[in-house]
Amino acid sequence: MELYIGSKNYSSWSMRPWLVMKHFDLPMQEHLVAFDDFSADGQFKQLMSLISPSGKVPTLIDQDIVVWDSLAICEYLAERFPEKHLWPIDKTQRARARSICAEMHSGFSTLRQYCGMNIEADLRFIGSKLWNDLAGLRADIARIEHIWAERPEIHGFLCGDFSIADAFYAPVVMRFVSYGLPISEQSQQYMQNILTNPAVIQWITQAQAEKQFVQHQEPYRQHREQFLRS
Amino acid sequence: MELYIGSKNYSSWSMRPWLVMKHFDLPMQEHLVAFDDFSADGQFKQLMSLISPSGKVPTLIDQDIVVWDSLAICEYLAERFPEKHLWPIDKTQRARARSICAEMHSGFSTLRQYCGMNIEADLRFIGSKLWNDLAGLRADIARIEHIWAERPEIHGFLCGDFSIADAFYAPVVMRFVSYGLPISEQSQQYMQNILTNPAVIQWITQAQAEKQFVQHQEPYRQHREQFLRS
Repeated sequence: MELYIGSKNYSSWSMRPWLVMKHFDLPMQEHLVAFDDFSADGQFKQLMSLISPSGKVPTLIDQDIVVWDSLAICEYLAERFPEKHLWPIDKTQRARARSICAEMHSGFSTLRQYCGMNIEADLRFIGSKLWNDLAGLRADIARIEHIWAERPEIHGFLCGDFSIADAFYAPVVMRFVSYGLPISEQSQQYMQNILTNPAVIQWITQAQAEKQFVQHQEPYRQHREQFLRS
Repeated sequence: MELYIGSKNYSSWSMRPWLVMKHFDLPMQEHLVAFDDFSADGQFKQLMSLISPSGKVPTLIDQDIVVWDSLAICEYLAERFPEKHLWPIDKTQRARARSICAEMHSGFSTLRQYCGMNIEADLRFIGSKLWNDLAGLRADIARIEHIWAERPEIHGFLCGDFSIADAFYAPVVMRFVSYGLPISEQSQQYMQNILTNPAVIQWITQAQAEKQFVQHQEPYRQHREQFLRS
């Protein structure tokens, strides 16, 4: 199966199915299509419009089947590999996992708009300002913390074992780190569960190795060396 | 199963699972929680915060299981009633159906922001202005028309027989009608397929019977009698 993804430093949507495929050891040939200015005649749109009906990443090709959009890809994989249990086995936790993924997929617009994923950057200076200024950001984070607090075990994942739900909230963890958002100790415990996951570690390492600076993804930095995480 | 929905005239998210349950004749006890100003001490939030972890509609209760968010509810129902084939039976069409639903769930932000669902209203005067002014709206509609054009048969639904995918695009049809957006003849054919569906007809009739005017859902009308569809 071929997974087309964007730049690992920036592409939160790509991170989700990649983590699922990596964590569950699914057959994956990975194609990284680096972000550019997304102009119609740029390399990104030129290539992705050939690959995917939406012209966007992530897109999965499984022989003659094309699946795009991170949530559809994960549902497709869950159905294709039932023995891997990408969703929780327990019916109640599975319903909850699907609910929080769909909620993340359509919501949290303030967090998404103001705190774009930028793994290599240390944006704590702007994070504290955003937190103070934006009631919508505080509301988004409060809801996320509430979701995390309802996980069955404090040392475990959102719906028991690692599942698609955790892959959907891993990019949020990346944002919380980069922007240094003030969250509870209990939430920090969950972030540690994510940050010590081997697939997540691999994604972060590769994101940091990209050393790419895409202007329209950078509302808070003038150049790449500025505000780098040490 | 108990389905909690919002006002039928306005709640595009509620329309999706309701149409699925109605069209496929699933057991449904429907609870309409009328929209108000969504203040914390208002009736809507007071009730929905007891029912749903997200405090939002739609929410489905199936005995001790709670599922919220329209996409999660539909996936839950598809799994719960496999014999009803809520997703297309054909694997390729099923992958496509999931892709276009997930794409609708997270995207089309300009259409969503400027052309809120308002079934009883005739907003063609503002629709033509929005169409001229907003490149983002024209791009959203072009993409939707492209998705519709890829349906297997012109007289059929998006992925063959009526499926969850059509329930996800039915609220878009409502918007296209209310705002009189200029679309191709081929797309109008698809709209007719939706508008003549018995479940859709029932929703529209009930929406028009509500005769409720919710200020924050009405950027273009001052009062209920203004710009009513004849």
